[in-house]
Amino acid sequence: MMFNEAVLQNDAKQIANEIGFRLTDRENGYFTFDTVEAASMLSARCIQAGTTIINHVRVEDVMFRETDGEKRVCGLVINWSPIMKLDLPVDPLSIHASYVIDGTGHPANITTTITRKMGVRLNNRTGQVVGELPLWAEEGEPFTVANTDEIFPGLLVVGMAANNAYGGPRMGPIFGGMLLSGKKAAEMLIHRLEN
Amino acid sequence: MMFNEAVLQNDAKQIANEIGFRLTDRENGYFTFDTVEAASMLSARCIQAGTTIINHVRVEDVMFRETDGEKRVCGLVINWSPIMKLDLPVDPLSIHASYVIDGTGHPANITTTITRKMGVRLNNRTGQVVGELPLWAEEGEPFTVANTDEIFPGLLVVGMAANNAYGGPRMGPIFGGMLLSGKKAAEMLIHRLEN
Amino acid sequence: MMFNEAVLQNDAKQIANEIGFRLTDRENGYFTFDTVEAASMLSARCIQAGTTIINHVRVEDVMFRETDGEKRVCGLVINWSPIMKLDLPVDPLSIHASYVIDGTGHPANITTTITRKMGVRLNNRTGQVVGELPLWAEEGEPFTVANTDEIFPGLLVVGMAANNAYGGPRMGPIFGGMLLSGKKAAEMLIHRLEN
Amino acid sequence: MMFNEAVLQNDAKQIANEIGFRLTDRENGYFTFDTVEAASMLSARCIQAGTTIINHVRVEDVMFRETDGEKRVCGLVINWSPIMKLDLPVDPLSIHASYVIDGTGHPANITTTITRKMGVRLNNRTGQVVGELPLWAEEGEPFTVANTDEIFPGLLVVGMAANNAYGGPRMGPIFGGMLLSGKKAAEMLIHRLEN
Amino acid sequence: MMFNEAVLQNDAKQIANEIGFRLTDRENGYFTFDTVEAASMLSARCIQAGTTIINHVRVEDVMFRETDGEKRVCGLVINWSPIMKLDLPVDPLSIHASYVIDGTGHPANITTTITRKMGVRLNNRTGQVVGELPLWAEEGEPFTVANTDEIFPGLLVVGMAANNAYGGPRMGPIFGGMLLSGKKAAEMLIHRLEN
Amino acid sequence: MMFNEAVLQNDAKQIANEIGFRLTDRENGYFTFDTVEAASMLSARCIQAGTTIINHVRVEDVMFRETDGEKRVCGLVINWSPIMKLDLPVDPLSIHASYVIDGTGHPANITTTITRKMGVRLNNRTGQVVGELPLWAEEGEPFTVANTDEIFPGLLVVGMAANNAYGGPRMGPIFGGMLLSGKKAAEMLIHRLEN
Amino acid sequence: MMFNEAVLQNDAKQIANEIGFRLTDRENGYFTFDTVEAASMLSARCIQAGTTIINHVRVEDVMFRETDGEKRVCGLVINWSPIMKLDLPVDPLSIHASYVIDGTGHPANITTTITRKMGVRLNNRTGQVVGELPLWAEEGEPFTVANTDEIFPGLLVVGMAANNAYGGPRMGPIFGGMLLSGKKAAEMLIHRLEN
Amino acid sequence: MMFNEAVLQNDAKQIANEIGFRLTDRENGYFTFDTVEAASMLSARCIQAGTTIINHVRVEDVMFRETDGEKRVCGLVINWSPIMKLDLPVDPLSIHASYVIDGTGHPANITTTITRKMGVRLNNRTGQVVGELPLWAEEGEPFTVANTDEIFPGLLVVGMAANNAYGGPRMGPIFGGMLLSGKKAAEMLIHRLEN
Repeated sequence: MMFNEAVLQNDAKQIANEIGFRLTDRENGYFTFDTVEAASMLSARCIQAGTTIINHVRVEDVMFRETDGEKRVCGLVINWSPIMKLDLPVDPLSIHASYVIDGTGHPANITTTITRKMGVRLNNRTGQVVGELPLWAEEGEPFTVANTDEIFPGLLVVGMAANNAYGGPRMGPIFGGMLLSGKKAAEMLIHRLEN
Repeated sequence: MMFNEAVLQNDAKQIANEIGFRLTDRENGYFTFDTVEAASMLSARCIQAGTTIINHVRVEDVMFRETDGEKRVCGLVINWSPIMKLDLPVDPLSIHASYVIDGTGHPANITTTITRKMGVRLNNRTGQVVGELPLWAEEGEPFTVANTDEIFPGLLVVGMAANNAYGGPRMGPIFGGMLLSGKKAAEMLIHRLEN
Repeated sequence: MMFNEAVLQNDAKQIANEIGFRLTDRENGYFTFDTVEAASMLSARCIQAGTTIINHVRVEDVMFRETDGEKRVCGLVINWSPIMKLDLPVDPLSIHASYVIDGTGHPANITTTITRKMGVRLNNRTGQVVGELPLWAEEGEPFTVANTDEIFPGLLVVGMAANNAYGGPRMGPIFGGMLLSGKKAAEMLIHRLEN
Repeated sequence: MMFNEAVLQNDAKQIANEIGFRLTDRENGYFTFDTVEAASMLSARCIQAGTTIINHVRVEDVMFRETDGEKRVCGLVINWSPIMKLDLPVDPLSIHASYVIDGTGHPANITTTITRKMGVRLNNRTGQVVGELPLWAEEGEPFTVANTDEIFPGLLVVGMAANNAYGGPRMGPIFGGMLLSGKKAAEMLIHRLEN
Repeated sequence: MMFNEAVLQNDAKQIANEIGFRLTDRENGYFTFDTVEAASMLSARCIQAGTTIINHVRVEDVMFRETDGEKRVCGLVINWSPIMKLDLPVDPLSIHASYVIDGTGHPANITTTITRKMGVRLNNRTGQVVGELPLWAEEGEPFTVANTDEIFPGLLVVGMAANNAYGGPRMGPIFGGMLLSGKKAAEMLIHRLEN
Repeated sequence: MMFNEAVLQNDAKQIANEIGFRLTDRENGYFTFDTVEAASMLSARCIQAGTTIINHVRVEDVMFRETDGEKRVCGLVINWSPIMKLDLPVDPLSIHASYVIDGTGHPANITTTITRKMGVRLNNRTGQVVGELPLWAEEGEPFTVANTDEIFPGLLVVGMAANNAYGGPRMGPIFGGMLLSGKKAAEMLIHRLEN
Repeated sequence: MMFNEAVLQNDAKQIANEIGFRLTDRENGYFTFDTVEAASMLSARCIQAGTTIINHVRVEDVMFRETDGEKRVCGLVINWSPIMKLDLPVDPLSIHASYVIDGTGHPANITTTITRKMGVRLNNRTGQVVGELPLWAEEGEPFTVANTDEIFPGLLVVGMAANNAYGGPRMGPIFGGMLLSGKKAAEMLIHRLEN
Repeated sequence: MMFNEAVLQNDAKQIANEIGFRLTDRENGYFTFDTVEAASMLSARCIQAGTTIINHVRVEDVMFRETDGEKRVCGLVINWSPIMKLDLPVDPLSIHASYVIDGTGHPANITTTITRKMGVRLNNRTGQVVGELPLWAEEGEPFTVANTDEIFPGLLVVGMAANNAYGGPRMGPIFGGMLLSGKKAAEMLIHRLEN
């Protein structure tokens, strides 16, 4: 709600230190931080570690391949977001990717797209996007981290997209789970890409 | 339809007197009142009795807890309504509550949210939001009062939200049922909170 | 498509003469007329015959009664159309009616409202709004007239609303069927109201 | 304000009778009429007298000629109003006219266009569109009729466009002046075209 | 900025008590109050004292009269605000008034309308709407009260409309000046109407 | 994504030459071309070969006939696209056609309309619009050409509408399949119309 | 007004032939042509002659240089039109040009920009954009060709932009003047660039 | 135009190093950088150096004081930008400031506000906002730095706001001048605040 300060729990303190944004100790294992500083440092450190962040681009669809009857996500179909907002008839482009991460939050747009268009079953208990439950912060935070996983060959879910896809509760305004989920996904990908 | 005057029946006369807005006797048990005066006095008296009314805030979701397999609503997820109108990516806040009242009228937004997101059964004949019937004022008025109840652990419905949730007819432009429904809900909550 | 001239077939010539708008004979049983003149004269003659046409009003819902387990439409819930367009929280009013005519064209709004909100069966082959077929002018014209009927106690359908409710083809740009459907509905109502 | 009834004074009673819409005598020289009936009959009678009313068309500019150093309006540049509303790059058409009448009401659009684009002086006290004064019904009504005139070679102003162009007060919700202004313009044109 | 609490200074304490909304003493002559409670009580007490507050209505123009060469404001031209927002061609109505108060705040809409349309001089140092200065709370508050006056025959300005019309600084978020300005205008009108 | 250059594969080189837009050889059987030049030449050559391209028109529905229990598409119901964008109540027109081609791309609007409104089965494996799969350029290109066919009596599908209707993968940004699909449809129609 | 056919006079017949779109002889020196064919062929032939046409780009400003106190236009500042339509804070790019042609039609956007932002005098009778006169086709057509000229060092005006900048009448719906103006500008530039 | 890379010249290399975003040497004294990385690091470093950046807030007006006849800017009147975008009647807040910097770019909003509302003369050659010239990168870059100054007591201009206020040319897409202008303003403020 447009506050300039947010809360982080003890678990994610080390990530904050590594990224380089400052924490103010509020006791009982909680810290607060300046939201603009944290977002800026996260963005800058990701880029300096090799990420490319592209402004004004939105995902329109995925790329897939089928080998021996098994489908796998292998890229994204992207377009300029102003083009999509104005609903102009401009063709998108596609980019190949060894793995795609669905970090679109509550709607889990990419995961939803593949179930809607490919008729496939996901690696979760219903095979479909289960749907997020309402807010229960104490359960939602660990659920996010535990369910950061490869939900379909080539596609990982992180953050609230994981809770939606696997059916966990919405998280409250504490941001540690988000950072831990992102870190877990990064480590999973490094491991997969190195093997 | 933008009239400055509305109708109240005999049953709710005492509430009007208690709140302090003036009635003009139109005979046969009907009274008229100035709508702006009535809304103003209702708002002022509620605040003076301890209510906090917050402008520009909208409910986005609920909070819940599950204890021994039983789910219970225990708060609301709110956001600035201008933020929601503009569809800006701004995180909401959550507020705890012993009980939540769904007074969102025809759509019964809060009750609809919990059936859509929690997969639970409500305490009514179908277990779902039954849906309001078209207008039948004579039946709709008493239905509202009779169905002002706790439709799910921690959640009460009042006014047209009760008619929608329990499947009663739409009320006509007579406002006594609304006041009586609100009073009944208040008394139910006082009783629950004192025990 | 914004033409100023439209076509009428021989069947409806007498109605045009009675209403008082001019026809130009185009041979083979077809006439053309000035669309603004025809609409103006239809509107004026209806008012002079006792109709009240209210500008800027839209139907939001219906009124109903249930007697001995049988539901009947007995009026309309109306609101200012600017209010509905701006989605303002302004209460509607209700008007009683012995019979309601659904002349809302393709969408058959009023008929659709009662099946959606009242869970009732209509007096047609499926009990629901069947849905209009694409355009087949030769079949659609007589279908409209044949299916101008009381589709539910208290509710008649006319024009394209009849085709949608009973599942007939869309009419082409010939306007005789519309006039004949309207005349048939008027005669049915006169008969019912006199008995 | 969306009333279905409007007021006419004694002066214009004869025009109402001639057009064929009904008046209800409200005494003191005032009558009321159904606004939809009146608009419909005016439209129908104009068409039957030879007028062509074209829906969905808006004036974009005027046509002019200059002979011996004197400019004269000789037609209109028109376009589809949906085209203009959507600001699409679609070319307009032009239609020749012996005389053009500016009946665009308060803004006096056509008169304003020629002063803005042609740098000419009008036949009034300032040579420019003087601007309407606020509402003074008793003065505004006769002013409209008195100032229904040829304000520039080939261009007449009627109704509120006359008050704006010549600088008279706004009229109140009595419609006799409008009808009398229209009649005067018609008679002036008949006289000019016959000579 | 959507706070639920606002500030009042000592000068206006008595008005708050008279209207009946509660103040919390914050020392140094400042009090805070619940904004919704205050707005509700002000609205209710005004109506109970004889004011009519009409929802969804906006001022479109003024009425005036000229006697012996002197113009005077004598009423308002009003319309439904949804009609004006949608820019529909619906005629307004006019209401007579002995005096009109311009309480439209920063823009001083009514005062601006008469200078734009009537070509008159106001009773201030330039004869025109001088324009408000940027914010200087200490000067703005007393300026508002001092300049609550009849700026043109039949037209008073109050609150920020007074600062705009007479050229004073914008007020800060302290609301005493507003209440005192309103009270002064009320007393001036009572005096004028009784004489 | 607003590039001025697009890619064509070897298969479609001959069509480009025939139409008269220039190709730049990029080796490995791929060519690039100026998109505006190609679109312009395709449009011009189609018209010169007898096609009529009408600007600002959109398909609203189809026409059909039923003979001996078999339905057949026999034309289109069209309207001005500005009219449809503004949702104005303007009646469409209908145009007869021996065959209709659905070249509306991803949504396959015309094919979707007939299954939604006519309750018919298409000539494909499910009888319904199967739905396009996400992007797989290598499979999508030949699928388009192979599935350019008469999917319902009187209705052919081409380009991405064929992939949607028959359930093939989305094509990547190589435009040969589009041209080959168009050519195949043209040849099928010539053959049918000559027999 | 969305016609598919337009008119060309004898003078421009040779250009049509050279570009390669077909004319239908309507006698008296007038021809008609298919507007889509003509626009397509003009676009294709320009590109084949070396022009680059870039879709979705709009001019935001000009580039200039000042040498020995004399200013000269030397390029354009461009941006994506969707970016400008959505008013997004995205920086434009600049492109150098030996000469810039203002072919923006009625508004003469580029010429207007330099007078508004550079405080310079144009090479016409007032030194400013004179403004177009209303429609007078017979005068407007030759005016366009005669005034196709270098109105400021480095900037040429063509078509309706020439009429606006030099103060000529609007042209009617005959397109020969447009083609002749474009040809004259092309020849002027070839001459300048070769010297 | 939505490129992910921008250009910096040699002069500003040291600032980039100090802020901590990476440069790629493109020779001839030019470097490129990732725009998202640079924006993120600038934002983070400013906050870590003591700046508070507040999201969703927009300047609505300024605060001023007048001492001995001399006016001075002493703060800002701010509001939530969603509130201003939706034009809601919500009061702003004011924040005191020793100095205000106008870094609103091309429009120079704050400087424009004080000349419009306070009737004061600025410390430049015309006393008013002179207006920016079109693009001339070589002159615009040094102009920005040279004109980063206190244009009115309490108000500094930086970046393109300086060029607009003092009348210099628009800068091209090279960002060194922006950084040098910001640094100069920071040093001027440090000096003033320490004295």
